[in-house]
Amino acid sequence: MKITKPRGTRDFLPEDMENRRYVENIIRDVVTKWGYSEIMTPTFEHLDLFTLKSGDAIVGEIYNFTDKGNREMALRPELTAPVMRMYVNEMQATPKPLKLFYFENCFRYERPQKGRYREFWQFGVELIGSRQADADAEVIALAMSILNALDIDGKLNVGHLGIIRYILKELDIEQQSQIMRYVDKKDDMGLDDYLDNINAPADLRRNLFELIGISGEDAIIKAKEITGSIPELEAFRKIIELLDAYEIKYTIDFGIARGLDYYTGMVFEIYAKDLGAQNQICGGGSYQLIQLFGGGDVPSTGFGIGFDRIMEVCRKKTEKPASVMVICTEKTRLEAIETTMELRKIMPAHIDLMKRNFKAQLSHANNIGTDFTLIIGERELQAGKVTLKDMKSGNQETLTLKEAIAKLNEY
Amino acid sequence: MKITKPRGTRDFLPEDMENRRYVENIIRDVVTKWGYSEIMTPTFEHLDLFTLKSGDAIVGEIYNFTDKGNREMALRPELTAPVMRMYVNEMQATPKPLKLFYFENCFRYERPQKGRYREFWQFGVELIGSRQADADAEVIALAMSILNALDIDGKLNVGHLGIIRYILKELDIEQQSQIMRYVDKKDDMGLDDYLDNINAPADLRRNLFELIGISGEDAIIKAKEITGSIPELEAFRKIIELLDAYEIKYTIDFGIARGLDYYTGMVFEIYAKDLGAQNQICGGGSYQLIQLFGGGDVPSTGFGIGFDRIMEVCRKKTEKPASVMVICTEKTRLEAIETTMELRKIMPAHIDLMKRNFKAQLSHANNIGTDFTLIIGERELQAGKVTLKDMKSGNQETLTLKEAIAKLNEY
Repeated sequence: MKITKPRGTRDFLPEDMENRRYVENIIRDVVTKWGYSEIMTPTFEHLDLFTLKSGDAIVGEIYNFTDKGNREMALRPELTAPVMRMYVNEMQATPKPLKLFYFENCFRYERPQKGRYREFWQFGVELIGSRQADADAEVIALAMSILNALDIDGKLNVGHLGIIRYILKELDIEQQSQIMRYVDKKDDMGLDDYLDNINAPADLRRNLFELIGISGEDAIIKAKEITGSIPELEAFRKIIELLDAYEIKYTIDFGIARGLDYYTGMVFEIYAKDLGAQNQICGGGSYQLIQLFGGGDVPSTGFGIGFDRIMEVCRKKTEKPASVMVICTEKTRLEAIETTMELRKIMPAHIDLMKRNFKAQLSHANNIGTDFTLIIGERELQAGKVTLKDMKSGNQETLTLKEAIAKLNEY
Repeated sequence: MKITKPRGTRDFLPEDMENRRYVENIIRDVVTKWGYSEIMTPTFEHLDLFTLKSGDAIVGEIYNFTDKGNREMALRPELTAPVMRMYVNEMQATPKPLKLFYFENCFRYERPQKGRYREFWQFGVELIGSRQADADAEVIALAMSILNALDIDGKLNVGHLGIIRYILKELDIEQQSQIMRYVDKKDDMGLDDYLDNINAPADLRRNLFELIGISGEDAIIKAKEITGSIPELEAFRKIIELLDAYEIKYTIDFGIARGLDYYTGMVFEIYAKDLGAQNQICGGGSYQLIQLFGGGDVPSTGFGIGFDRIMEVCRKKTEKPASVMVICTEKTRLEAIETTMELRKIMPAHIDLMKRNFKAQLSHANNIGTDFTLIIGERELQAGKVTLKDMKSGNQETLTLKEAIAKLNEY
């Protein structure tokens, strides 16, 4: 009976995994140098956690199930809610700010399509406990620093929800949310109709369209002409000043709405110049979830990077370490095992496991692409020698084992 | 609303994760040097995959669910079946033997108890395509080599199911399975009753109890007195000879049954001397699943290591790299950001994100345990200097930034 993998999921072959681990390690190195620490949460959570954060509508896109104890569970669709839950349960007493990162898989039930999978990987950062511009700027700079380390050309858009919310402050929460959704989709027609529907005041309508149309160098000045001096704009100005200190290039866009109601202030999105339509690879901002989850009034800022999309654009490939296969006969096998064990102290080393003859062993070494073979024939063994063969050039020389190891150690 | 983590699962704090990643990397280094390659399969599979391998009874211990497309899915309870499924679907044409490893989470629904979790981590190896003693011996030696690299004192028991099955060959499959279960549980009383029940011949009964009671140096000779010269015993003798070449210490135990019907030949178990009752940390053997999953008659050998148990016994702890916090005032902040970015090229570096004053910043550095602080005061900045403070000794000196970086680079 032939069984397939579940639709929309993937098996990763060795060459996939090598590249994925390589890229993962580059990211780990960057965040560690920025002083962030890894945490890990369970793969499934109580369904409540995600509906509390995102509303009941999210259930339609979630892998949820009733466990054998009759509890409603969900495979996590994202990691911000689990990290905030973990913070509330276990880390409230830790010195602030907490600088955390995660690298985990997430799940969503949706129609499988190119580049979208039902199980996918997210790398992300959550900086908990600071409401300063410094925190917002650091998080953005860290995201850009990761992409930089991966040689990915990322285009950064930064905005601030406080400014658009200031313009909408006369409307009720439901109207604000609805407008944010149109803004997020860049659906100007839909937005226009909706504003008609709710009889939005003319100046609100004018200010809103002006604000989301702002771009270029003097974006903050233009915004100030609309809103006047408000604290949100001053906070945003400080973030921008810090981004300059980090030498980060950005585009200001007050039309970023992120489509998620729990963002409170700065929001940003990074697009990969090399990807097609679905070219957002990172998104984040500052948000407030901890109170909702039963903790104190603690602000946080974070981002998520879609690791699978990163793997599509990242041209960095791992360089395999040089490897060797020890070739032996039945009579030299025990010595060959000993030699293989010596070699495994310094490099990946294979030995025949199929009772193949000499020629078939060499052919296998060629098939699996080892860089060297180290041949232990019967005559060689008697003379206390081995033959080291460079599989690329075909060159070979007869050496003592010690000499051969010294030679291999240079690679 | 306060939400907890699901019962029987865990959140991992930064210090947990650091040690877990450290141990994981030691294991990765060993298997890579042995020439094994990582693969990864989806977190959930069609439920069929696991019932086909282990029978319908396993459903009671599995996290299974019906997805939105009405398919029966299961969070994987183990990884051998997924790896074999992946082999059948995608790797049949790869040169043999395939040397694969995985490091992933698994799930089981059972009463939570000390040291047993509903989500747990397995490291494992599957060597596909060889029916030689060499493959069996390599897999055992690799498992021991991993434990050795972790300074874990593992006690290895090795057996061979072919020998006990030879003694039971007159019985039907159901009877054989039942007997293997009693043997696996070391339930001699239950076994005795069952043999009575099925009216087992007296010589079968005598041979069986003699075989599972064998121990010590001349175990193979003693077994031969019971079974005579059979190919299974000769195969086992070859494995033992190879284990000697690998300089592995072992105890022969023909009573290892592993409780799983798909094992065919060599079986082994490794116990940690430091653990209590549940002290098995590794188990494996040679088995046949590929045909069952729709592939060819391809033998395989593998093992799984319980990573959570490993973390209980492994005394190896990561040594944190030296870290630094840059201390600044509001007037030196932009320069401090630049300096922090320089430091992040060489070590984990923090900068204040809370607009704290000088003293509070130093106190935070102390709280989070950075090894150094690099102080950029206003007067220091004017003089082109910084103060480098060793937080352990309290010693501090005034240096140029270049000198300070050179000094930190030594750590």
